[in-house]
Amino acid sequence: MTHNVLAYAALDSKSPLVPYTFQQRQARPDDVIIDIEYCGVCHSDLHQARNDWGFSRYPIVPGHEVIGRVKSIGTSVTKFKVGDLVGIGCMVDSCRTCSACHQGLEQYCEAGNTQTYGSLDRHDQTPTYGGYAQTIIASQDFVLKVPENLDTQSIAPILCAGITTWSPLKHWNVGKGSKVAVVGLGGLGHMAIKLAHALDAEVTLFTRSANKEQDARDLGADHVVLSTDPTQMKSVKNQFDLIIDTVPYDHDLKPYIPTLALSGTLVLVGYLGEFSSNSVPMIMGRKSIAGSVIGGIQETQELLDFCGQHNIVSDVEVIDMQNINEAFERMLQSDVKYRFVIDMKSLHAS
Amino acid sequence: MTHNVLAYAALDSKSPLVPYTFQQRQARPDDVIIDIEYCGVCHSDLHQARNDWGFSRYPIVPGHEVIGRVKSIGTSVTKFKVGDLVGIGCMVDSCRTCSACHQGLEQYCEAGNTQTYGSLDRHDQTPTYGGYAQTIIASQDFVLKVPENLDTQSIAPILCAGITTWSPLKHWNVGKGSKVAVVGLGGLGHMAIKLAHALDAEVTLFTRSANKEQDARDLGADHVVLSTDPTQMKSVKNQFDLIIDTVPYDHDLKPYIPTLALSGTLVLVGYLGEFSSNSVPMIMGRKSIAGSVIGGIQETQELLDFCGQHNIVSDVEVIDMQNINEAFERMLQSDVKYRFVIDMKSLHAS
Repeated sequence: MTHNVLAYAALDSKSPLVPYTFQQRQARPDDVIIDIEYCGVCHSDLHQARNDWGFSRYPIVPGHEVIGRVKSIGTSVTKFKVGDLVGIGCMVDSCRTCSACHQGLEQYCEAGNTQTYGSLDRHDQTPTYGGYAQTIIASQDFVLKVPENLDTQSIAPILCAGITTWSPLKHWNVGKGSKVAVVGLGGLGHMAIKLAHALDAEVTLFTRSANKEQDARDLGADHVVLSTDPTQMKSVKNQFDLIIDTVPYDHDLKPYIPTLALSGTLVLVGYLGEFSSNSVPMIMGRKSIAGSVIGGIQETQELLDFCGQHNIVSDVEVIDMQNINEAFERMLQSDVKYRFVIDMKSLHAS
Repeated sequence: MTHNVLAYAALDSKSPLVPYTFQQRQARPDDVIIDIEYCGVCHSDLHQARNDWGFSRYPIVPGHEVIGRVKSIGTSVTKFKVGDLVGIGCMVDSCRTCSACHQGLEQYCEAGNTQTYGSLDRHDQTPTYGGYAQTIIASQDFVLKVPENLDTQSIAPILCAGITTWSPLKHWNVGKGSKVAVVGLGGLGHMAIKLAHALDAEVTLFTRSANKEQDARDLGADHVVLSTDPTQMKSVKNQFDLIIDTVPYDHDLKPYIPTLALSGTLVLVGYLGEFSSNSVPMIMGRKSIAGSVIGGIQETQELLDFCGQHNIVSDVEVIDMQNINEAFERMLQSDVKYRFVIDMKSLHAS
């Protein structure tokens, strides 16, 4: 049995998102169907809606920071029951057999994971539709348990912005005594500061905007360095074990490399494209430039559990579904602290 | 007491090396004076002789792959006795107090290590003179014990070419089951193959010269990939845990990144300068580009011990001191398999 789902969709790369009804794929025994309560608005939703990366498949129902409650479960579902508070992030499936999947690194699935929206289901080839909708369906293995003690409307961005910064923090063993820097204070950057701080690292924000200092400190940054000021940049030479660079556009990495400590790593999590660097300061300090994308399912569950224990959520601005196009425009201007979250009750009311 | 030492030196950036006598610095209680038997010829000897890096201080007595026997020891020397077979690599001192030095990573000394030649001694500010000479002096803490069971004339390159590739092999935990690739088959590359093979890794050589295949296999390579052949490059996609890139000139790194395995690292050990890459394949596989320089003293001792146990030496062409200028020219043409080593008896005879 399939049923129709009310959503907001981009029908082509030029038009605003509009109300749209799609037919949800046939449920399988391991599926969980979720009544969506909140969905975060990620920059990549906008990129995909507007085909900025050239591979969008329309209609697109964006949204991969999905929070809701279990509406129904398939006959083989053991991990969830109706009414559970759950989440879905950027993936709804993967091959489950490759080396990466066996390591719990489904984000690096060798066959390519199935994205929450804009992909084709691996079993029935139907398009996947994201969280700007009433309900969503996925195998229980790609559904996350969400702690009940958190402010529900502020959790969603943990599922993309959060895990994207958490995964490198864990991979590069950040903990007490680590010195971490974050480049850029947006959706990802504000989560990186909160999470690194909660891991007991000493946290520095690199920013080009002096007026972000107080906000950064309120989020947990111990220091703020104006990246446009060479004197300030020199003052943090050889400091950082890990720099999480969240800037999503082309920018010069060279000023940051000397601020890495011996054997330190600058990890790009936001920028897709060409970059240049100079090997001399890298060789003279065994420094690395790396990339990282989201995180695995088990790692995402660990992050949600960690957030529950440490009472960490995102700083969000809740909007109605009907205001998504305006939110996209404001996001383009970085005019949000720090993530829009759609209250999906508004969709039902429309 | 000081004494005069016969050597070969570059007196300026334009002239060939010539016989030269320098006054060795005053010995201190912790010093070891070594009668040099063999000295390897490193590309950087040529760079420094010709001031290619712009910071040469003349006269320069090159040579930082030094093998010899202890001639005399200071009153506080406990690690060596007269007659011991010993070596000196690229460093003869460091601050010994910074975090890097405390970790045995003197090559990354925060105050800058004292190079075997072309530096100033930290205590008396006299110039340091390298291994193209009768004798050399250094604190016992920067002198290495050399296994007696190896072919003495073939050991010297272990002290630079060897440790430069060994240090990343150890830092990135190469061992049984690891897949390692080496870019370039020269002095560094041939040691990288031997050492990675001895560590039980599966070893691939990337080369632009099809005629190097048999040599690479003889050195221990399991596979040879022609880096100019896109089909061969595709066949090793997502393969390598570590790529040691020994190429000393500007070259395109982009074709190598897709051949890294998930979480793999390409480490530059030869090229100093600007490079470019693309973040997409790095982000989509948590891949890194890193740099690394030589190795620490303890690590170099471990390497020499390992070479003694595994009977590993360099493939060398032994020359007389008088032929150094011709050797420099041949080195520029990559016309050596794989390292020139000067037999210092020839200097005494001149």
